[in-house]
Amino acid sequence: MAIRVGIFGYGNLGKGVEQAIRRNPDMELVGVFTRRDPAGLTIKTPGVKVYGEDALVKQEVPMDVLILCGGSATDLPVQGPKYAALYNIIDSFDTHAHIPEHFADVDAAAKKAGRIGIISCGWDPGMFSLNRVYASAVLPGGTPYTFWGKGVSQGHSDAVRRIDGVLDARQYTIPVPAALEAVRAGKAPELTTRQKHTRECFVVAAEGADLARIENEIKTMPNYFDEYDTTVHFISKEEMARDHAGLPHGGSVLYSGVTGANDENTHVIEYTLKLDSNPEFTGSVLVAFARAAYRLNQEGQCGCKTVLDIAPAYLSPMSGEELRAHML
Amino acid sequence: MAIRVGIFGYGNLGKGVEQAIRRNPDMELVGVFTRRDPAGLTIKTPGVKVYGEDALVKQEVPMDVLILCGGSATDLPVQGPKYAALYNIIDSFDTHAHIPEHFADVDAAAKKAGRIGIISCGWDPGMFSLNRVYASAVLPGGTPYTFWGKGVSQGHSDAVRRIDGVLDARQYTIPVPAALEAVRAGKAPELTTRQKHTRECFVVAAEGADLARIENEIKTMPNYFDEYDTTVHFISKEEMARDHAGLPHGGSVLYSGVTGANDENTHVIEYTLKLDSNPEFTGSVLVAFARAAYRLNQEGQCGCKTVLDIAPAYLSPMSGEELRAHML
Repeated sequence: MAIRVGIFGYGNLGKGVEQAIRRNPDMELVGVFTRRDPAGLTIKTPGVKVYGEDALVKQEVPMDVLILCGGSATDLPVQGPKYAALYNIIDSFDTHAHIPEHFADVDAAAKKAGRIGIISCGWDPGMFSLNRVYASAVLPGGTPYTFWGKGVSQGHSDAVRRIDGVLDARQYTIPVPAALEAVRAGKAPELTTRQKHTRECFVVAAEGADLARIENEIKTMPNYFDEYDTTVHFISKEEMARDHAGLPHGGSVLYSGVTGANDENTHVIEYTLKLDSNPEFTGSVLVAFARAAYRLNQEGQCGCKTVLDIAPAYLSPMSGEELRAHML
Repeated sequence: MAIRVGIFGYGNLGKGVEQAIRRNPDMELVGVFTRRDPAGLTIKTPGVKVYGEDALVKQEVPMDVLILCGGSATDLPVQGPKYAALYNIIDSFDTHAHIPEHFADVDAAAKKAGRIGIISCGWDPGMFSLNRVYASAVLPGGTPYTFWGKGVSQGHSDAVRRIDGVLDARQYTIPVPAALEAVRAGKAPELTTRQKHTRECFVVAAEGADLARIENEIKTMPNYFDEYDTTVHFISKEEMARDHAGLPHGGSVLYSGVTGANDENTHVIEYTLKLDSNPEFTGSVLVAFARAAYRLNQEGQCGCKTVLDIAPAYLSPMSGEELRAHML
C-alpha cells in the first residue's frame, strides 16, 4: 500500500510537493487542504479532492504524513504543533534563528501524540545543513562557507515591491565568482558580506515614478541591501513576464580543512545545487523526508526530528540490501 | 572521558587515522596494533604503545572502537568478522561487488557479540555513497554520475609496477573536462567509459628496458587500461620522488533530474572532493564514523551498519541542541 500524503497549503511549494509525489510510485496524494475556499481551487492531480482546514482538524481524511506548505513567519509556528498532535507532519521552516523554539513546540506535541514531526526540510535548511555537518565532522577545525545563488530571493523581491512607485520586482542573489574560486582553491579566505554576494534587481516602476529615488531606496535599505553591492535595472511589465517568470535558485556549501602532522594537506569539499525551480526542488526534498517520517513512525518512534537526525537509508524507496548492492 | 580508539594496521591509512584522531579532542588513541614486529614500528603519537596482533585477540588494551586499516582483498574479509566479535569495529572495505557478503559476515559476528561494525567508510564507498542516495531519493528517475580524480589510483599504479622492466609507476585517473561540463550543465549525456576518464602514467623504467613494449603493455592491459585513452610518460627516479610523492585524489558525484508537470525544470546536484591526501581524508572519515559507532553501541544498538544507516548527527561532537542552533 502506498504512503498516503496530504498537502496543507497550495502555493508554489504545495504545487511543488504535488509534482514530487507524482514521481514517487510508493506515495499517494490523498488530499489538498486549504484555508481558502476549497471550491475555488483546482489542483493538477486527477481524482484528488480539495478540503478546507476543518477537514484536517476533524481528521476526515486518513493519511500517513501531512506536508505543511505554509510560510515560516506566521503559518508554521502555529500549524506545526497543532497538526503534530494529529498527524505525522513535515515542514520547511526556514527562519534559522527560531528553529530551536519551533523544534521544542513540535517535539512536545508530537511526543504527546506518538507522532513524528520533521522540521526545516528543504535545501537550506536541509540539504545544505547535512553537508555542513558532514564536512565539519570529517575535517574538524576547517572553514565553512555557504554561497547562495544565482537565484531569486523571494524575501528581497518582496522588500523591493513594498517601495512606493514599484509595481513588480525580482531580486537575484549572485555569488561573487572570485570569492567562490578562492574558496574552491582551498585558500580559506576571510570574506565580508559584500565580498561574498552581489544583488541584482529588476524593477517595474509606475509611470512617472522617480526612478533615482527608487534605486536609492533599494540600495540603502537596511539589512536587505545596504551591506551589498546592488545593481538596479528598470524594465517593462512585458520584460518581467518574459524573462523573470521562473524561480531558479541554488548555491554551494564549501568547506576546506587540513590534515597532516604539519597541516600540510588541504582538502576542499563542495556541495552545489543548480535548481531551475526552487519550490519544486524543495517539494521534492519534503517528499523524500515524508517517506522517512512514515517509516520512523511505523518503527514506533515519535517526537521532532530534523534532517540531521535521520539516517539516509530512510529516504530511499530501496531496501537496505538494494542500497548496499547498488548505491554504496 | 574520551572515546578510546585503536588502530590495526599502520600503512598510509593507519597513519591517516592517527593524524585525524589528533584533531578530535573527544577521541584518544590507545594503541596501534600490527602484524609486523611491534618493536620495529615507531609511531607519531607520543606515549602511545605499539602492540602485536595477539594483544588484540587477548583484549589487552581496553578500547571503545577499533579501526581496521588493512586492505580489502585479503585483510578485511577476515579481520572484520574476527574483531567485530571483540570490539566495535570500523573499516574502509572498498570492493563494491563484495560489500553484501562482507556486511553479512560482520553483521553476524557483531550481533552475536552485541557490538557495532561499520563497514565501507571512506569517500567511495562512503561520502560519495551518501550523496548518490540523497540525490536519487530527492529526484527519483534522474541520472547519476560518478567521476574520479584527478588523483592517484593505487590499484592501477600497482598494475603498471608489475610489468617487466618497470621500477616504479604512478597512475593518475583524470575526468574528461567536456564530460564533466555537459553533466554540470544538466544535459544528462550518455557517456562511455572512455568518454568519462583518461589515464596518465608516469613510469621509471629499468636501464635498457624496451620502452615501446612497456607502453604497449600498459595501454592494452585488460580491465585496467584497454577501455581508456592512456598517456605514458617515462621519467627518472628523481623526477618520481620530486613530482609524484603525494597521494592526491578526489572526484565528483553528479546527479541531474527533472521536475514539473512536463519535465520542464532541470536540477543538478554536485558533490565534489579535492583531496591533497587520499589516505588522510579517508582516515578522517573513519574517525568521524568511529564516534558514531561508539554512540550507537552506547545506546544498545548492535550489528553491521554502513554510512547509509547512520544519522548525520552521530558524527558530530556537537549536541543536538548545538547542531540545531548553529548548523541547521
